[in-house]
Formats: sequence, C-alpha cells, structure tokens
Amino acid sequence: MKILAVDLGGTHASCALVEGVAILAREVVPIRDLALLGPALPAIQAALERLNRDGSAEGIGFGFCGLVDALSSRVTSTNGKFEDAPEIDLVGWAQSQLGLLLRLENDARLALLGECHAGAGKSQTDVVMFTLGTGIGGVAMIDGRLLHGRHGQAGVLGGHVPVKLGGRRCTCGGVGCAESEASGWALPLVSAEWANFKESALAREEINFENLFACAANGDRTAIEIQRHCLNVWGATAVAAIHAFDPELLLYGGGVMKSANIVISFIEDYVSRYAWTPWGKVRVRAAQLGNDAALFGVVPLFCEESARVR
Amino acid sequence: MKILAVDLGGTHASCALVEGVAILAREVVPIRDLALLGPALPAIQAALERLNRDGSAEGIGFGFCGLVDALSSRVTSTNGKFEDAPEIDLVGWAQSQLGLLLRLENDARLALLGECHAGAGKSQTDVVMFTLGTGIGGVAMIDGRLLHGRHGQAGVLGGHVPVKLGGRRCTCGGVGCAESEASGWALPLVSAEWANFKESALAREEINFENLFACAANGDRTAIEIQRHCLNVWGATAVAAIHAFDPELLLYGGGVMKSANIVISFIEDYVSRYAWTPWGKVRVRAAQLGNDAALFGVVPLFCEESARVR
Repeated sequence: MKILAVDLGGTHASCALVEGVAILAREVVPIRDLALLGPALPAIQAALERLNRDGSAEGIGFGFCGLVDALSSRVTSTNGKFEDAPEIDLVGWAQSQLGLLLRLENDARLALLGECHAGAGKSQTDVVMFTLGTGIGGVAMIDGRLLHGRHGQAGVLGGHVPVKLGGRRCTCGGVGCAESEASGWALPLVSAEWANFKESALAREEINFENLFACAANGDRTAIEIQRHCLNVWGATAVAAIHAFDPELLLYGGGVMKSANIVISFIEDYVSRYAWTPWGKVRVRAAQLGNDAALFGVVPLFCEESARVR
Repeated sequence: MKILAVDLGGTHASCALVEGVAILAREVVPIRDLALLGPALPAIQAALERLNRDGSAEGIGFGFCGLVDALSSRVTSTNGKFEDAPEIDLVGWAQSQLGLLLRLENDARLALLGECHAGAGKSQTDVVMFTLGTGIGGVAMIDGRLLHGRHGQAGVLGGHVPVKLGGRRCTCGGVGCAESEASGWALPLVSAEWANFKESALAREEINFENLFACAANGDRTAIEIQRHCLNVWGATAVAAIHAFDPELLLYGGGVMKSANIVISFIEDYVSRYAWTPWGKVRVRAAQLGNDAALFGVVPLFCEESARVR
C-alpha cells in the first residue's frame, strides 16, 4: 500500500511516496509565505502529482504543525503559522484535485507514529515523544493508540506544561510553559535575563542550543548554568508526561539531539530519580528517523485504524 | 443491581450498599493502624456482611488511596499508608470470605466516576477532577472512560505535576509537584518559609487552609500572598491537566472547597486566560457528592464495562 505524505513545516513541505518502511521518492516544496497555507497548496499538489505519476498511491497523509482534529481531518488552531488553515477543507481539496482520500494529523503525532512504525519505538505501545527544537513538541501514545481527546488536544501539548510558577508568557497564551523556558525561540530571552550573561562567551555568539552546549563544554560558567536550566526544564517536562501518560519509553528528537549524549543521559537520570514509577524504569532514547519520522507515520495512519481512535 | 462499596481513606473505611443513585445503608469502620491494610480487613468484612445481610449485593467496589492496576485489581504502590496492600490479594479475599467479585480502583478515580454518575459531572464524558485536601488528587476521564495507561498510572497523578522548577521535594519522590506546593501537608512548610511569616496572624493559628483563607479575608498581607501562591499552583495544575487531557469540565472537591466561591472563580478566570482551548471554554465546577462520591462510583465501575477499559 503506497501512501503520499506531506509534512508541512516551518519553511517547507516535505512530500514523499511511502510504502511499508521505505520512502520510494521525495520532493521538497519551499514555502514562501508562512502566513498562509492556501497559496502553498498548488505547489504541494504539483509535487504530489509528480510523486504519484503512476497513480499507485491510495491516500494522502498530511502532517500539520498546529492543533488538528484528526477525526474530522480539520485544523482547529494554529500558533503563528498558516493562519488560514482552519478555514481550508483539505479533505475536499485532496478529493477534488487529486482524487485521493486525505487524513490529517498533527505533525508531532505523525512523527511518533513513524518512530513506532520504523524507528526507535518499534513494537512499543506506550510512548511519549518530545521534539526539542525551535519549539517543544510532546505527544503521547497509550496502548498503541495516539491520545486525541475530546477536541483533538489531548496528549499533544507536552511542551505546554507549566513548569515554572510565575514564569514567562508563552506563545500559546500560558505562563511558564516548558516551551517558554527551554526552546529555541525562548533561549535568547532566557539568556538575556540571566545574571552575568554579558560576561558569557555566549553573549558574543548567535544564541542557539548548538552554541550554548559548545560554550558550556568550554567551561563557560553562565552557559553551564543556562544549559542546566534547560536540562531541568526538559527533565520536569518528562516527569509531567510520565505522571500523565504512564509510558514505558520516552523518545527525543529535534535539533537539540545534536547533543543527544548529554540530553539523554541527563533525562534518564532525572526521571529515574524524580518520576514515580513503582513498576520499573522508563527508558529514554533518541529518535532515529529525524525529519523523516512524520513521513513514515502516514503508513500506520492509513493502515491501522486503531491509530485514529480517541 | 446492588453493589457493596468500600472507600478506604486516611482514618476510616466508608462502607455502603449502593443501588443506582441511592446509598441504601452505610457503616464507617475506624482504622487503627494506618500502616497496614491486612489487620483492618476483618472489621471491613464484618461491616460488609451486615450491610449485605439479605445477600442481594452482586459485587464489591473497593476504592484505595494509592496506585492501582484496575485491570488486575492489584495495588501497585502506596504512599505512606497501608504499605502491605501490594501484597494482599483483595479479589481472593472477597471471593473466599464474602463470595463476591471485587473490583479495585484508585479512590480518586472512583470519586470521578461517582460524580459523573450521580453528581456534578452527570452526562459529561471528558472531565478532570481535582481533590484539594491533605494531598492533591487529580484524575482524568476521556470519552467517558477513566484513563489508566500501561501500569494504571495514567491520568491519576494530577497532583504530582511539577509546577515549580527547583521546588520542594514531594512525598512521591518528585520535585516542585503541585502537591508539595499547595496541599494540606505542604501548607505549613510553605508558610514557614514565607517572608515575614512570623508577623502574620496565621503564625498564631494552626496552619490549615481554613485558617489561611480566614486570615486572608481579614486582610492579613502574608496570608493573602500565600493564598495567592496556592491559587496559582492550583491554576497551573488545571492548565497542565487541560493541556494533557483535553477536558470540557474541571471538578473540584476536598476540604478546600469550604471556600469554593474563591477557588472556583479564581480557577475559572485562570484557565480562561492561560489554557489553550481554541474550541471554547473549559467549565469549572465544585463537586457535589463530597465524601460519598467514591461510594457512588462503584455503580459505574460495575455496570459500565467501558469504565474499566484503558
């Protein structure tokens, strides 16, 4: 069964033709105007037509970077990107323009499905996956099924757990969310407020996780403190997810995984000390499929009806 | 269908015979030795035999104040009370001593079932219920089913969400849990560390929520600050639960509900400002059944098989 995949991200749409655990062909469509999805659809359609030249695809799995009601395949809320998406009938578009059934899912949920289908979560049923990058994604699977909830919001807002009382206002509207304390977009804000930041080597660099971890490795005291702050935020977020969703495995993806050794071993230690898991130890692993995870996720999205149950 | 109910709490076991939305008879069994469940079972058995004199009961629903694997009806972990419970085969005990099927559930989950059966959650399917008392209970129902998870821990640790980075060590082993920042047992610790606490009127009273709210109502500045701290903790915990479980209704029970007006209206306002719910507003209500909620919960526990599904 061949499925077309679209993973709509910050700067481009990754399109692919996927079968089983293989990506048969792929194409990347640059997105010019991040504000709107509508104007990007013709280029995505053209790419999908090229990928499906022989007409063998049986459906389209579409990953969207926002809140999604998977049961109705509608975008319910966006957060700064593609603000017109809730108004767009993607199922209707796919049917009329490409003659194919489309299933919509949140991109982070699709990535978790992909890792459980072909990556670091193979044969696992109770998994939370975090993506530590520009934002923080955190999604939950319980008993082999993605958690959806009444309005499609359950188990998908792992980065929007309030971990710091009286903390920074988050883009989601909350305060002290993990994402507002230890994500790519928050890091410059957190750093700028840090005591003695101006004396730090980090102050002379572009403030991102790569430079933060490099400065910390060089012994820069402020960078070490900020790195520890971020690690503690990710640790607390992991404990929150374990206490909420009862997983056996935590998977980590995203740009921060360039420093996977440090992050994975810190979180492994943190959750073994602070999570209440009398049944045993939650395993902590790096995701394996990188940016392809969501593309692989379209296979279980179509093949396993259970993946769509609430 | 008549069901025997046992709600095993801190100082006593409430036993009852329940049918539909009526408690037909009840008996309270004092617990002398909180450390052990085994020695308390004969008195509980005697009470259940008196309640079921005519032999009409068709089962026993047993609520336990700790982690429970409802699928296997075993206690998996305790937290300071009844440490022998994980070793006790309650199903075997009920079968051999009373000739009845026993179903075990966490007491807070049973209370949520009860409120949805006969109280403030009637006809609701997506509900999180918090109990603000000596500890903080927080349990989740999604799509009409209690969330259980792989090891029975999902959706039942709402009071053990880490809301304060670098906060106080909690009895569960975590740090900065809601319960370690704004529960009955934590309140004296939080207060003692508060700036200017010794000048507060609260310092001359027993430190509990009733006195805290009374001092705050009298304009005591420190009491007002501590009260605000607790309200913020409960608000953050509510947002964490909304972002995790996507409910339409939050229910609040427990001793703090003596000040229901203040608590409910604060949390209503907090979640309407800080929770990301593009679909609409989460309702916030006081629970209605008080200490009887778990007793009523045995009816759906037995009658609705779905209540036991993961």
